[in-house]
Amino acid sequence: MPAAKRAVHALPAPYLLFLGDAVEAGFAKTALGLRDWAPDRCLGEYALPTATVTTGLPRMTPAEAAAAGARALVIGVANQGGVVPASWMPALLAAIAAGLDLVAGLHTRLGEIPVLRDAAAQAGTRLIDVRVPPPDLPIATGAKRSGRRLLTVGTDCALGKKYTALAIARGLQARGVDATFRASGQTGIMIAGEGIAIDAVVADFAAGAAELLSPAAADDHLDVIEGQGSLFHPSYAAVSLALLHGSQPDLFVVCHQPARALILGTPGYQVPPIEAVIEQTVAMGRLTNPAIRCAGISLNTAALGDREADAEIERTASRVGLPVADPIRGGTAFDRLLDACAR
Amino acid sequence: MPAAKRAVHALPAPYLLFLGDAVEAGFAKTALGLRDWAPDRCLGEYALPTATVTTGLPRMTPAEAAAAGARALVIGVANQGGVVPASWMPALLAAIAAGLDLVAGLHTRLGEIPVLRDAAAQAGTRLIDVRVPPPDLPIATGAKRSGRRLLTVGTDCALGKKYTALAIARGLQARGVDATFRASGQTGIMIAGEGIAIDAVVADFAAGAAELLSPAAADDHLDVIEGQGSLFHPSYAAVSLALLHGSQPDLFVVCHQPARALILGTPGYQVPPIEAVIEQTVAMGRLTNPAIRCAGISLNTAALGDREADAEIERTASRVGLPVADPIRGGTAFDRLLDACAR
Repeated sequence: MPAAKRAVHALPAPYLLFLGDAVEAGFAKTALGLRDWAPDRCLGEYALPTATVTTGLPRMTPAEAAAAGARALVIGVANQGGVVPASWMPALLAAIAAGLDLVAGLHTRLGEIPVLRDAAAQAGTRLIDVRVPPPDLPIATGAKRSGRRLLTVGTDCALGKKYTALAIARGLQARGVDATFRASGQTGIMIAGEGIAIDAVVADFAAGAAELLSPAAADDHLDVIEGQGSLFHPSYAAVSLALLHGSQPDLFVVCHQPARALILGTPGYQVPPIEAVIEQTVAMGRLTNPAIRCAGISLNTAALGDREADAEIERTASRVGLPVADPIRGGTAFDRLLDACAR
Repeated sequence: MPAAKRAVHALPAPYLLFLGDAVEAGFAKTALGLRDWAPDRCLGEYALPTATVTTGLPRMTPAEAAAAGARALVIGVANQGGVVPASWMPALLAAIAAGLDLVAGLHTRLGEIPVLRDAAAQAGTRLIDVRVPPPDLPIATGAKRSGRRLLTVGTDCALGKKYTALAIARGLQARGVDATFRASGQTGIMIAGEGIAIDAVVADFAAGAAELLSPAAADDHLDVIEGQGSLFHPSYAAVSLALLHGSQPDLFVVCHQPARALILGTPGYQVPPIEAVIEQTVAMGRLTNPAIRCAGISLNTAALGDREADAEIERTASRVGLPVADPIRGGTAFDRLLDACAR
């Protein structure tokens, strides 16, 4: 498999993180995630005067960042609708003028904005939309690949599959395991510096893209693959299944948020029990890997206090009979989950 | 739901069927399917002098067909690779010059061939690629729609899901049932005159496209939806799941070819038993329609003699305990399958 294909979004780093005019941390989740999970790729931040959110990184103009070695301005902020507001334009043009590439994962493609396209062409810089899939993706073959794989799956979307995969990959790397985080969504791609946004791939090629994302590797290598959506999400289950079949995981970790009762964005759909997700993931996943099994559960307990979180983790572990942890809280529970992932 | 959205590929008819230089019927499957299933949309055929395949329809030049009322030349032939060979070009240009739209479902897009694009622009005719999805497809909502739906599913791809859906829709219409065939692939779209090629939709929107394909309808209306792929096909299961979730079928019919042991195109994968497909279709389909159930089995017995076919149908029926028929053979077995679909 040619390296060029795998590394389509080999992103230029280090980054200058653009925060726009964000006044709520929720809109700057991408920048904050990059600060937390890819500090070595982040040089500083740049924001409009009205912004109140900060990553705590040094504030720099694009010219200062370029002089300090930055290679890209990463749009680390979203606004409703995923468009690029006119108020951001002078800042983005300043970055291009400073010789920085622009990197974004917005709904609107940077290359479709004429003023940016013209400026980048003139400056000889790139506009990189990380949601644009590589060209010429293959149809999945289903052929067994060498190496080991772990996929994070969810009872719903947006509850911690990316950070669970990152925490497991980092935790295993710290133990000396040859593990690689594989990004399947926009923020993950920015963190890893490469990857494929599986949900943006044409359906026929989605499992093939997943095969490309975690290529054949040494027998003791472990790819820890960021999951997408949920087999129980009526909008996105097809994306989840393509990723499951193409990843051929030996292990999966179910991500769950105890406080969430209803599936996001689809009124009337209940979040399934963890046990149902284990059962259906095995039932579907065994098509491409008959040895698939659940390594454990990742609970997102951000909404709970320490004591409540510990109690929820213990209760879930004794009910499901598998290691359960909140990777963000870590501790001995997470050590036991890592043990199960390393086996 | 605006009618304009549903009818994106409201194709111009009647058609002049183009057979290219086909010398094997297998490459002219689309033209032969249109002759059999959409005779009222087919005016005649047009082929290069070296072609030996014929649909039996009157031979006409594009100019003669246009004079007789034809509105489009449909490329009813495929060649290896799905490209448009240079040898077809004079014929296609003659069709454009005669004022006909070109309709195709090839891998190569007609609009990407400069000489055709320029000729069509000059003549004021259209180049219609039926595999191009409509713009602005929605994310699936999972919301329950009115009307009834039946989906054909398969133990593999390419074994009769389209013709089973067509035969069921026609059979029920003949009984006075208010039924509509819904096309999810290129040949089906040409037969129906409209539809969406689900496998060509970006994964995130595939279930949403399926919701659009079989819109809310009168309570006693039945949409008979052409299935795609198979939940057991490692390349295409995501397409099948998007169609299953978006279609919210009340009923499904499992299509199976008894002679086929291995899944097409993916060495080492066995065709699953019919029972496994029923079980997994119910397990996954109940997410968006808890009342989903299997109406019966469609066997593709084209490779068998009459007596063998009857025996296979009887054997399968007694094993599965549901109506089983080969819709192409018809007979009382198919009447019983239609009874089950009408209930």
